[in-house]
Amino acid sequence: MQVKTILLKKSVFENNDRQADLLREKLKQKGVFLVNVMSSPGAGKTTTLINLINRLSPFFKIGVMEADIDSDVDAIKVAEKTGCKSVQLHTDGMCHLDAGMTEQGLNEIGDDLDLIFLENVGNLVCPAEYDTGATMDMMILSVPEGDDKPLKYPLIFQKCNLTLINKIDALPYFNFDVEKCKERIKFRNPNATIIPISAKTGENMDEAVEYFKQRLFNYGGEN
Amino acid sequence: MQVKTILLKKSVFENNDRQADLLREKLKQKGVFLVNVMSSPGAGKTTTLINLINRLSPFFKIGVMEADIDSDVDAIKVAEKTGCKSVQLHTDGMCHLDAGMTEQGLNEIGDDLDLIFLENVGNLVCPAEYDTGATMDMMILSVPEGDDKPLKYPLIFQKCNLTLINKIDALPYFNFDVEKCKERIKFRNPNATIIPISAKTGENMDEAVEYFKQRLFNYGGEN
Repeated sequence: MQVKTILLKKSVFENNDRQADLLREKLKQKGVFLVNVMSSPGAGKTTTLINLINRLSPFFKIGVMEADIDSDVDAIKVAEKTGCKSVQLHTDGMCHLDAGMTEQGLNEIGDDLDLIFLENVGNLVCPAEYDTGATMDMMILSVPEGDDKPLKYPLIFQKCNLTLINKIDALPYFNFDVEKCKERIKFRNPNATIIPISAKTGENMDEAVEYFKQRLFNYGGEN
Repeated sequence: MQVKTILLKKSVFENNDRQADLLREKLKQKGVFLVNVMSSPGAGKTTTLINLINRLSPFFKIGVMEADIDSDVDAIKVAEKTGCKSVQLHTDGMCHLDAGMTEQGLNEIGDDLDLIFLENVGNLVCPAEYDTGATMDMMILSVPEGDDKPLKYPLIFQKCNLTLINKIDALPYFNFDVEKCKERIKFRNPNATIIPISAKTGENMDEAVEYFKQRLFNYGGEN
């Protein structure tokens, strides 16, 4: 499986927020819905995306940009398992993506798509600090990480309007209180939609799929 | 349980590497062995430390510095479960610790200790880029994160001479190849000591305890 790898250059824009707003506007005009996906390393971003894409691809034309410091295993895996357009972004040691870096990826993947997932670097801290220009930010928290994460990493929970709690198939094995975790997420962001899922078994994935369908069908009408 | 929380100030030193070397030398002269503990969020740093400290405290005078962006749950937990001296460091949004920040913590915890664990911010990227001045760097990788992490986060595996593979009690539940993971770690750092453990069940903790005993007994003789 051949997947193109882009080595990202450091952005030259001094004002990332301004750049991000411009990018978001441009995407809106082209009808491209860009989702910035954040999580800890190993929370299951790639498996969740594969599962989501396979369920959403009958309805939308989908692409994926996989950001990593090194390796291209994720982009190859997504391309193999979904057949969708996939690009690997190498951040050259950088711990996050900004709008300029995101735009470099978009230039490669093209804009004839309805929905693009941008898999950010696995990190709960820095990616939350940089606006990528995405239409929406989401995060994936996994059960083995513990239900105390919203206490320790406030900004990412505050910024994301969608949190998927992944690996709920492992709930019997870990000491994770879903209700307590939901409360802690809502404390950081009262508007957050929280969907517990298992990307491995497919449990509750329908609810996540429905969320994206609604968002995309309403995209034209959003502000 | 009362635990002191320090709000860290941004370091003023331009040359962190120089500052870190000076701190390491100072600790050596005082006979304090400082361990910088890094991992993803939720890999089990705090549980592992509690387990290690309870087994090492008959032999050494131990302290802990818990760095987090927010909350003091970890410092309180460690103090309650081990009785050892514990300080919470708030990084004020910063994603890593450097030597100047570490020194602010050390000024609080004091230097009449043999062994201090510094629990860094949960993040596989940025903490690896900053020398804290610690005597050694270690990392904890947990089974649910996946055996591909050494492919994706090269620097942290390269820097750490000790990697604990935690949550091996969950191996039957996850698709994690311990031997493949060891190979990938050794590819990043051929000198790495790798010890699979379960901080939850105590499995293999003796081997980790033995590692620290050896390091501390030889500390005077190290370069």
